[in-house]
Amino acid sequence: MASSLSPPEVRMELHSVNREKLLNSLRANLSSFSRPSQGFVFLQGGEDQSRYCTDHDELFRQESYFAYLFGVKEPGFYGAIDVASGESMLFAPRLPDSYAVWLGEIKPVSYFKEIYRVNKVLYTDEIVHVLFDLYKGKGDPLLFLLHGLNTDSEKFSKPAEFQGIESFERDLDTLHPILAECRVIKSTLELALIQFANDISSEAHVEVMRSIKVGMKEYQLESMFLHHTYFFGGCRHCSYTCICATGENGSVLHYGHAAAPNDKILQDGDMALLDMGAEYNFYASDITCSFPVNGKFTSDQSLIYNAVLDAHDAVISNLRPGVCWVDMHKLAEKVILESLKKGNLLTGDVETMMNERLGAVFMPHGLGHFLGIDTHDVGGFKKGEERPKEPGLSALRTCRELSEGMVLHSFTYYRLQISLLFFCSVKS
Amino acid sequence: MASSLSPPEVRMELHSVNREKLLNSLRANLSSFSRPSQGFVFLQGGEDQSRYCTDHDELFRQESYFAYLFGVKEPGFYGAIDVASGESMLFAPRLPDSYAVWLGEIKPVSYFKEIYRVNKVLYTDEIVHVLFDLYKGKGDPLLFLLHGLNTDSEKFSKPAEFQGIESFERDLDTLHPILAECRVIKSTLELALIQFANDISSEAHVEVMRSIKVGMKEYQLESMFLHHTYFFGGCRHCSYTCICATGENGSVLHYGHAAAPNDKILQDGDMALLDMGAEYNFYASDITCSFPVNGKFTSDQSLIYNAVLDAHDAVISNLRPGVCWVDMHKLAEKVILESLKKGNLLTGDVETMMNERLGAVFMPHGLGHFLGIDTHDVGGFKKGEERPKEPGLSALRTCRELSEGMVLHSFTYYRLQISLLFFCSVKS
Repeated sequence: MASSLSPPEVRMELHSVNREKLLNSLRANLSSFSRPSQGFVFLQGGEDQSRYCTDHDELFRQESYFAYLFGVKEPGFYGAIDVASGESMLFAPRLPDSYAVWLGEIKPVSYFKEIYRVNKVLYTDEIVHVLFDLYKGKGDPLLFLLHGLNTDSEKFSKPAEFQGIESFERDLDTLHPILAECRVIKSTLELALIQFANDISSEAHVEVMRSIKVGMKEYQLESMFLHHTYFFGGCRHCSYTCICATGENGSVLHYGHAAAPNDKILQDGDMALLDMGAEYNFYASDITCSFPVNGKFTSDQSLIYNAVLDAHDAVISNLRPGVCWVDMHKLAEKVILESLKKGNLLTGDVETMMNERLGAVFMPHGLGHFLGIDTHDVGGFKKGEERPKEPGLSALRTCRELSEGMVLHSFTYYRLQISLLFFCSVKS
Repeated sequence: MASSLSPPEVRMELHSVNREKLLNSLRANLSSFSRPSQGFVFLQGGEDQSRYCTDHDELFRQESYFAYLFGVKEPGFYGAIDVASGESMLFAPRLPDSYAVWLGEIKPVSYFKEIYRVNKVLYTDEIVHVLFDLYKGKGDPLLFLLHGLNTDSEKFSKPAEFQGIESFERDLDTLHPILAECRVIKSTLELALIQFANDISSEAHVEVMRSIKVGMKEYQLESMFLHHTYFFGGCRHCSYTCICATGENGSVLHYGHAAAPNDKILQDGDMALLDMGAEYNFYASDITCSFPVNGKFTSDQSLIYNAVLDAHDAVISNLRPGVCWVDMHKLAEKVILESLKKGNLLTGDVETMMNERLGAVFMPHGLGHFLGIDTHDVGGFKKGEERPKEPGLSALRTCRELSEGMVLHSFTYYRLQISLLFFCSVKS
């Protein structure tokens, strides 16, 4: 086992760039409504979670919006950006002395200022007086809090809470759509991290392909993948639970969870559909590939594999700014239906099949999704935007027109138990 | 990389044995208070957790009391035991049709009855009428709900909740101490699982020792451990976040979490303190061992290592039913202080040091803890039992007298950055 890759240095200006972008969008928005450029973007980072009533702490992973703006790896922080001055601040938890014995050296605020490159670091018990002191607007200081719908989970983000928040003016509507939109278009620094997460994951997939044998358990493939991406890539988290589906399990879109835990034994003749992606410094990868466990495609397997490969190639060659993602979904469906017809698995007119939405039988999910700090990254649908209702299209996670800097993962074609290694960033 | 072990078959009668034991204890308790042996032990299993507002699902791990009584691996279940008849029941979530496409075949209740060996499996929307139909006592059916303090986390377990619970009589006090006490004494079937989790983890520790090299990153040791225990042992979960501490990090008791993420480079001359344990079918292991990264102890390192080894041997040879764990803690402290004196690191009278609680400077944590479905397993302190207040002893997770069938993990001697591979079950 070896690797030609090593974890790249993480440049913390990534987060300053993200904050700058937010400030520009937010100020433009405020100005368009003739509102003053005053107040604070104010976010609460994630907290440690323990398992039920025990003292078993889950490995902490920062909340994604907070990670985007501040890059903080530790739990219990708050972050603010002064809209007027652009000044960025972190508020660190004041840790008890006993922390040092159990959890390690108590870092001074200067340490966090240095590594997270913000203008100030204070303690969470100082939030109220610091923000009151800094505020130059009229009335009570205004907080732009994060509150809005995640269109993949249908859940709402939780606005910051702290003791004394009731003395502030609070705006729950402005920030979320603007910040989500910032996350849709990736910066060069973000692209580099996504690229590395995908490179190390690709390499791990290849390693798994080389080692796979009939008689193994599916979870052994997961174990090899996790080890390769962590040992060589420093990826401690995965972007999602590994899906190591062989044989008929390949038709279950999100196989691999606790109720279907990658526990089948690999059989001769099985296709393997492996959907696994590592996360590097918060940024996700998402890669699926399919191949025969015994190394030889049957003619049926080959027919389906090539149908998906052709669709994949067709989509890739058509991707450019201005293209609508729904059209890419339909293009993929059409190429696949044509291949299935050519292979005598379907008869009839492909246009009619398209009109009848037959493609949805084979591809019940959408073509793909944004990829970033979340695997299903935010911004798929804007507020009020309607989702298509037709079979197949209704499962799309975005229907947007593509722009430069978007990163999309596509596409696994589960029902056919075939899929390809694929990640693309949109370039003009 | 190879292994001489393979995951043992998991025998589901394990959980029937656990239920039987609870029934016996509960009936005896009710009888001692002249209460009728009627009502239902009623527990709610864990639910799927997603990451903040996203659709990223964390890998589900069952709540430990529910796992103890029912062994259910899937989220969203409830479980009941009829105290009068001894009949066991599971209530499964009724899954929507869309589940099959995304998450896999919807299993019929007969499937769960077969694999979990309970008397009945129904759906969660049937709880109220099923329990009302079964209840033969007076008035509304009585539910024994789980509510009580975890003495390691200082948190309370969450009693079951479901629609319609208000029509039941509820007892929040009786079940918790009895069920916690059942978990303290392990059955033969439980011991076999704990043994395997420890065997595969020991083997993985040895594998890491063989591969360790100056220049590696600490997390690479974690990666090797995780891979070995998952690939060969089928251990998908760890008992706790791996602690791979080298050099001065060895003095941080719970190093390895997100704010201290095993990211130091191994230096020539470092000691490695590796505290890692895999979980097999809910049952934990907990193993720490220390050794010099470059393979050669310095004389100082050797002095400390042997001090701990002697303490370890002294405790092991004194362990038997009837012995008090506080005395074992003191014995370990004493042997270590004697060794440090012999090595000229301390001067003076060891008895005086003991009286002054000097041992707590080097061992700020307790000697060990119960080990079972939780790493810090339940039952350390009984309700109302006072904890010692003296330095060192105040950190003990139990002060109990040992009984046959208890399983304890002990002891890492962090401050000295030395520790030994050690797990013991008490036998007469």
